[in-house]
Amino acid sequence: MPYTLQEVAQHNSPKSCWVIIKNQVYDVTDFLPEHPGGSKIILKYAGRDATDAFEPIHPPDALERYLPQSKHLGAVDSAAASQLQTARETKEKTADELRVEREQAAKPPLNRILDLQEMEDVARRLLPKKALAYYSSASDDEITHDENSRAFSRFFLLPRVMRPVSGTDPSTAILGFKSSIPVFVSGAALAKLGHPLGEANITRGAGRTGIIQMVSSNASLSYAQIAESRVSPNQILFFQLYKHKDDAVAEQRVREVEALGYKAIFLTVDAPYTGNRERDIKAGWELEDLERMAKEGVRTSDSPQKELPRKQGDLEVEEMDVSGTAGALVANDDVDMTWEKTIPWLRRTTKLPIVLKGVQCVEDAVLAAEAGVDGILLSNHGGRQLEYALPPVEVLYRLRKQRPDVFDKLEVYIDGGVKRGTDVLKALCLGAKAVGLGRQFLYAQSAYGAAGVVKSVRILEREIISGMRLLGVRRVEELVPEMVERVDFQPILAKL
Amino acid sequence: MPYTLQEVAQHNSPKSCWVIIKNQVYDVTDFLPEHPGGSKIILKYAGRDATDAFEPIHPPDALERYLPQSKHLGAVDSAAASQLQTARETKEKTADELRVEREQAAKPPLNRILDLQEMEDVARRLLPKKALAYYSSASDDEITHDENSRAFSRFFLLPRVMRPVSGTDPSTAILGFKSSIPVFVSGAALAKLGHPLGEANITRGAGRTGIIQMVSSNASLSYAQIAESRVSPNQILFFQLYKHKDDAVAEQRVREVEALGYKAIFLTVDAPYTGNRERDIKAGWELEDLERMAKEGVRTSDSPQKELPRKQGDLEVEEMDVSGTAGALVANDDVDMTWEKTIPWLRRTTKLPIVLKGVQCVEDAVLAAEAGVDGILLSNHGGRQLEYALPPVEVLYRLRKQRPDVFDKLEVYIDGGVKRGTDVLKALCLGAKAVGLGRQFLYAQSAYGAAGVVKSVRILEREIISGMRLLGVRRVEELVPEMVERVDFQPILAKL
Amino acid sequence: MPYTLQEVAQHNSPKSCWVIIKNQVYDVTDFLPEHPGGSKIILKYAGRDATDAFEPIHPPDALERYLPQSKHLGAVDSAAASQLQTARETKEKTADELRVEREQAAKPPLNRILDLQEMEDVARRLLPKKALAYYSSASDDEITHDENSRAFSRFFLLPRVMRPVSGTDPSTAILGFKSSIPVFVSGAALAKLGHPLGEANITRGAGRTGIIQMVSSNASLSYAQIAESRVSPNQILFFQLYKHKDDAVAEQRVREVEALGYKAIFLTVDAPYTGNRERDIKAGWELEDLERMAKEGVRTSDSPQKELPRKQGDLEVEEMDVSGTAGALVANDDVDMTWEKTIPWLRRTTKLPIVLKGVQCVEDAVLAAEAGVDGILLSNHGGRQLEYALPPVEVLYRLRKQRPDVFDKLEVYIDGGVKRGTDVLKALCLGAKAVGLGRQFLYAQSAYGAAGVVKSVRILEREIISGMRLLGVRRVEELVPEMVERVDFQPILAKL
Amino acid sequence: MPYTLQEVAQHNSPKSCWVIIKNQVYDVTDFLPEHPGGSKIILKYAGRDATDAFEPIHPPDALERYLPQSKHLGAVDSAAASQLQTARETKEKTADELRVEREQAAKPPLNRILDLQEMEDVARRLLPKKALAYYSSASDDEITHDENSRAFSRFFLLPRVMRPVSGTDPSTAILGFKSSIPVFVSGAALAKLGHPLGEANITRGAGRTGIIQMVSSNASLSYAQIAESRVSPNQILFFQLYKHKDDAVAEQRVREVEALGYKAIFLTVDAPYTGNRERDIKAGWELEDLERMAKEGVRTSDSPQKELPRKQGDLEVEEMDVSGTAGALVANDDVDMTWEKTIPWLRRTTKLPIVLKGVQCVEDAVLAAEAGVDGILLSNHGGRQLEYALPPVEVLYRLRKQRPDVFDKLEVYIDGGVKRGTDVLKALCLGAKAVGLGRQFLYAQSAYGAAGVVKSVRILEREIISGMRLLGVRRVEELVPEMVERVDFQPILAKL
Repeated sequence: MPYTLQEVAQHNSPKSCWVIIKNQVYDVTDFLPEHPGGSKIILKYAGRDATDAFEPIHPPDALERYLPQSKHLGAVDSAAASQLQTARETKEKTADELRVEREQAAKPPLNRILDLQEMEDVARRLLPKKALAYYSSASDDEITHDENSRAFSRFFLLPRVMRPVSGTDPSTAILGFKSSIPVFVSGAALAKLGHPLGEANITRGAGRTGIIQMVSSNASLSYAQIAESRVSPNQILFFQLYKHKDDAVAEQRVREVEALGYKAIFLTVDAPYTGNRERDIKAGWELEDLERMAKEGVRTSDSPQKELPRKQGDLEVEEMDVSGTAGALVANDDVDMTWEKTIPWLRRTTKLPIVLKGVQCVEDAVLAAEAGVDGILLSNHGGRQLEYALPPVEVLYRLRKQRPDVFDKLEVYIDGGVKRGTDVLKALCLGAKAVGLGRQFLYAQSAYGAAGVVKSVRILEREIISGMRLLGVRRVEELVPEMVERVDFQPILAKL
Repeated sequence: MPYTLQEVAQHNSPKSCWVIIKNQVYDVTDFLPEHPGGSKIILKYAGRDATDAFEPIHPPDALERYLPQSKHLGAVDSAAASQLQTARETKEKTADELRVEREQAAKPPLNRILDLQEMEDVARRLLPKKALAYYSSASDDEITHDENSRAFSRFFLLPRVMRPVSGTDPSTAILGFKSSIPVFVSGAALAKLGHPLGEANITRGAGRTGIIQMVSSNASLSYAQIAESRVSPNQILFFQLYKHKDDAVAEQRVREVEALGYKAIFLTVDAPYTGNRERDIKAGWELEDLERMAKEGVRTSDSPQKELPRKQGDLEVEEMDVSGTAGALVANDDVDMTWEKTIPWLRRTTKLPIVLKGVQCVEDAVLAAEAGVDGILLSNHGGRQLEYALPPVEVLYRLRKQRPDVFDKLEVYIDGGVKRGTDVLKALCLGAKAVGLGRQFLYAQSAYGAAGVVKSVRILEREIISGMRLLGVRRVEELVPEMVERVDFQPILAKL
Repeated sequence: MPYTLQEVAQHNSPKSCWVIIKNQVYDVTDFLPEHPGGSKIILKYAGRDATDAFEPIHPPDALERYLPQSKHLGAVDSAAASQLQTARETKEKTADELRVEREQAAKPPLNRILDLQEMEDVARRLLPKKALAYYSSASDDEITHDENSRAFSRFFLLPRVMRPVSGTDPSTAILGFKSSIPVFVSGAALAKLGHPLGEANITRGAGRTGIIQMVSSNASLSYAQIAESRVSPNQILFFQLYKHKDDAVAEQRVREVEALGYKAIFLTVDAPYTGNRERDIKAGWELEDLERMAKEGVRTSDSPQKELPRKQGDLEVEEMDVSGTAGALVANDDVDMTWEKTIPWLRRTTKLPIVLKGVQCVEDAVLAAEAGVDGILLSNHGGRQLEYALPPVEVLYRLRKQRPDVFDKLEVYIDGGVKRGTDVLKALCLGAKAVGLGRQFLYAQSAYGAAGVVKSVRILEREIISGMRLLGVRRVEELVPEMVERVDFQPILAKL
Repeated sequence: MPYTLQEVAQHNSPKSCWVIIKNQVYDVTDFLPEHPGGSKIILKYAGRDATDAFEPIHPPDALERYLPQSKHLGAVDSAAASQLQTARETKEKTADELRVEREQAAKPPLNRILDLQEMEDVARRLLPKKALAYYSSASDDEITHDENSRAFSRFFLLPRVMRPVSGTDPSTAILGFKSSIPVFVSGAALAKLGHPLGEANITRGAGRTGIIQMVSSNASLSYAQIAESRVSPNQILFFQLYKHKDDAVAEQRVREVEALGYKAIFLTVDAPYTGNRERDIKAGWELEDLERMAKEGVRTSDSPQKELPRKQGDLEVEEMDVSGTAGALVANDDVDMTWEKTIPWLRRTTKLPIVLKGVQCVEDAVLAAEAGVDGILLSNHGGRQLEYALPPVEVLYRLRKQRPDVFDKLEVYIDGGVKRGTDVLKALCLGAKAVGLGRQFLYAQSAYGAAGVVKSVRILEREIISGMRLLGVRRVEELVPEMVERVDFQPILAKL
């Protein structure tokens, strides 16, 4: 009993809301209030084809995972399918899509990319506006985001001379798993926004170069798809868990990734609420204005707001809908986790190593050690959560000075703002076991797919090896606190 | 015996000076030397209608308050009234008024305002030049003004993880009165300069959102009008007292606001003299030049001063008339207040709680505690008084470090430079009970009336709740000094 | 026996060099090697009228002072006088002179000048290029010059409240002489470069406003002319002595100024060599290029050097003639002064109080106190001598912290970078008795003559009184170290 | 048996590769894998004339030094020689060559150059793009490079007054050899890139002015040619040794320079690997694009990459060829030097004084003293090796504070970022015996040949003498740590 478009079109209200995704019809009426991204965005497509909006930000298994089988109503009829196909093919490209095509054609060849900043610059030019907003945005005035990077510039290195450096080896082990360099992919969501192959680009690039990927709960591919993208069965994946408020649901997710062969659980602890990412929020509006103006032939410099309806009752202030792309992702997460309850629960649930992702001060690092977890990732979520959280390298520095004993009890990692091999080396000198990069790999795969990821690792590898030699060390274990000094002046970052 | 315009016009000199305000004729000859703004400005309107100049900067009761009944001569005749009405209606708009109209029409809808800086940006574009100069100006080179904001950026937050944060509640009590968030409206004068409804916008917005307004002695509405604007009889108002040099006059003012239901006295202690607000002083000249040039079709870049009469005797330097809008307001204030005399006098005069507004160093905070007042507002008057006074958050930090006992003896507030929820949270971590905003509410009501005020509070509320959750606290009492660290580096405020 | 121009014109070589100044003929052949500014500049006018070049940078008594009477050959004949007069009247104005005339006509009326920076801005626009270069230039990259001002911005004030401030009095005494405000004119040479009346403008302005002027040895008026410019016989003048290498010549100069009624000797100790003032050196070249281009109708952006003769032998590098206007002034000074020799000599020579001008570190302040001088002026010569000398307010701060006893033994002053009343107050809080300004008065008199000087003092007076009231003090003696704090952050000086 | 061009042209592959250099034919087939710059660059000229590419970056003796006599096949025939000559004469100039010619013609006369920054500015304008890239580039984001200079600005001087300064003498001795000022030429390679006479310009300029030149192993003239360029047989040269990995080869090089009269060995210890000089790497690409566009009449702003072939297999990332000009120079160097092995070997090999060039921390300075070397040059290779190495003046400052005893055991020098006489004086106050400049002399000779070098030394001499006088010292030994203070504020370097 395939459906006609007319039939579907009648279910276009909160009372009965059907949508078409990849030629299949779904009744999402009951699901509306549960949708983490809010019902409003779904209702925009009520009674219509929602494929283009659905695909880039949901893993393919989202429908079967969250929608009971009974709501999968079945396929549209062939007339409908062909009509939808035609509609897709003849749809006029948006101004932003046209811009992206131009930029894709003009990007430099990959072998001219010399460092991760250049990789990012290419991606920033060719990413769709909305994807860039999601990837690049951070909280409030983005001060913590900017300082994450800038903090590294206050740490100088003290190279040693007259030491043999032939045969330098930058490899290490993370939670016991071999890594070709002391770098891993930190969880970063929605890779499909930037490239149609999404997280698989990262998985393949990481596998090829021998580094480990931590996969986000909010990946835009399914955990299974990502696991299947590995270049060999031995390739290591870690899992970044956003714990569901319902322990049973959370446990099921852990079981699932265990079964898929993921090797560690990184429990996100810094996101009981989504940070205020204004750049992300605005991107939607700006895009709307942009497309409208493109159609009307209006120049961008004209004030776009002029035509918008304005309804400003005296004290009736419209509620802000400011969740952006990010808000939706954490709506069902557990905001009441505790040391006493959550860690033991997770230990009971899995035998995998447990790492806390998002520790942001010395006190919590100490508590984590006391709680017996296997590692902590000092991270402020790339500046996307609490504005004015300290840069991770600053927290690492304080931990080294105040509680060096913690480094003996668990592995310490950092992420946030890392762009250069010297950044990695500084962190290792201060005691980090490895360093994560998130955004940089999203940019790399957006710009050049899996090859961009490979290239990024090669760049870091070259910079790390070069830095180790110039520091006078052959093995990462030789990197010690005496080789790094936090200076009292702020270098000018002219080229950045 | 209504007056003709001809009759009034004859009283156009210091010897006999009449003015018309709202069709009433007043003999202000004897008042000339007492006028806080100087006689010169009144004489400009001697024998003429002064309504447009009088209204935006005087409360309606100013005439009956300061001019004996015998000088209220009576109404103009109907011919005069109709002639004045016509004059008003046919008066050509000034270049600045036309600009303001254009900007009003082009402002973004309120629901697109994401933070207080954006609110301020809108207001800065659409405010009349003179109002903006009065609102935004600060002393000398505006260094203390700029540093008030920037100081917050040196305080970083140390978020705690694995703490339950559902049901976060940002409410507090100020002097025992409930406030929905730890924020109040700090005294800010002359709201009518920015919006015809003036301070009532703020009163209604504060009432609607459950925060407390401190009303300035120099409000452009009468204290009664403001009290009447409350959204409910329970809405709390505080009063900012500029103490008159004559104790009796001052006492009468306190009695008046007590009777109107105001609940606390914030005694201004930082303004025995008006700061040097050059931006404010210049605004008048620039406006004059602007209008002249607009009429003559001259381009702004031409030197306007060319045509001005210049009379530079050798050593005869004309006295500077540089009081600006602000100078007039404090001309009759008490410049000889002392701890020994003034506090006891005020305690005798009223049973209301007493707060000193404008304490600027640790020593005076200690003296205030010893003097037994109920609170102190660490404030440098928004950078409008002594240039190079320390930013309030820096004073708060020193007070916390040097004399933590003071926080047990009275309530401590700060104002100046606050624009973000994180600013509020930092102050609370350091021991402040609440934080005041002045200019930001003037901007909000100028841009969008009462709705702008409501929106501003909602923005702060969202930012405060979000920040509390990400810090790992549910109640404002859980905000402690250990959660804030003054760093030794200066973040770059790129977006600001 | 008056001379014809033809007769004079024959003496146009180093062997016989005559010049005409104000219609008088002088034989300067023997003087050539002694001329502090070098022989080259004189030879440019050999056999010709040199009046225009001579006048702005020499006091009128220079000729009789340095040239034996026998070399004063006598007047030119009346035909010559009339021919010179005609030449002067018909001389085409240079491009720079025309620019200066335009700027003079366009300057704002004096009553619109609100602060000393605005005064300086006016002067910078209307000064002849060469005068500006001499006044504004400082050593090397002008870092000490710029930091002199900026250093004040790291000192914040701690205002006290609840203190009576009516009747604030900013007057003080310097070396026992009354001063209306704690400010004096610090020695600054060549005022005639900026205004035809030269130093007399400053003398009259200082007299009118009750402050003291320190007169430079290198004034462009004679010491007698300056003394005669006083507004009353009681007006106090100090003398800045550049000690001649010949004690007898130096003694004679001291005797002369004693006789003229000067009341103190400020011995310059920081100028045994002239700093490297590149801006000053370049001004001559640039002016030359400019005039040439103006004549040839060439645009400034074209490379002017193209036409210059270039003679670059392989290793033969032409000696640099880089003395600029400044170099000449110190050529005959004593570069071998010592504590043991020079101070006792000066004490023997005069009963006037002795102040050392140019002390730049704590150690020398202590030595000065031990040597028994009456005062020291902490100064780096406005950044014109040793690049990277510390800003005076920083030296003052160190002196206060390390050797507070020195303040009891002599009077301490500072100059350099002072532009605001708050700068003065900070210095006084730290222990300075008074503060000198040099360049600012040169700018003021250049822009508006004596009235500019009066205005500048009035501005400072208003700022000082205002600042004292807001600090809670009535007398300068109440300004104490506790009222100033050196902060660890650098304010942004946006308006400056 | 002279060769025809046709014969040579047949040997144009890796299997048989001949090249012509200055009309001589060489068989470099076997040498290809050994070429430090890689085989690729040679193969570009296989079977062709390589003179223009070979000359600017190889000393003339490179061929006989590295190629067995049997591979020197002999001359081309006269037809070929004449044809090559014609080709050279009629070769069209590149866009960059034309630009360089224009800039050469427009450069200012040498006597208008006032300081080393101006000298550098001239050179930067007129240098070929590739030469500038090699001279100016530094590692990664060039932060250490930029901070090398900026670090000096945090050191202020404390001038002493009332000290005799006539007869100031800036001369010193380095390793016992007289130097007219405490400055030497630090090793800097490839001077021919900037000027056809190359290092000889520096040798002659240094000889003329009495300073010592340290000659780089990688000079573009032969060590003998440089020695022959001395202005007198007594002129002192030092040798910068890049130690070959084969001790015997290294020993032979030491013997050679001993025989040529070089007086000390500066052993490079900071270059076991070449830093990542992106500016240098990019210069080649950019030049290529530039020339192509010049030919095609395309504007520079157009994206040049568009036409480039792009081959981005999925995971096949092309190896980076990023050695740039610099990479080649160190390919055969010893990367396994140790304190235990290398210093004794060098001591055995030569009786010349030994200095370690590239010490970068206090610990290694101490080890050097213990190893008994004669001196250390604190240097980070001008920021060209490890990014985030500390500026040398900062290392010097730490050495002075932490281990002042080291200064008694060996001579300490610094190089990197020195541009002013005050920089030199600060280093001497902190204990340096002398200060090296590398790039500045490369720029000087590029701009003006040997005269530029002479001029640069004269400028420094004047600045040093002036600074010594203003500091109150006559001899360099009187420069003491008490005369320099590291301040806690960062001056703004407005002019730089």
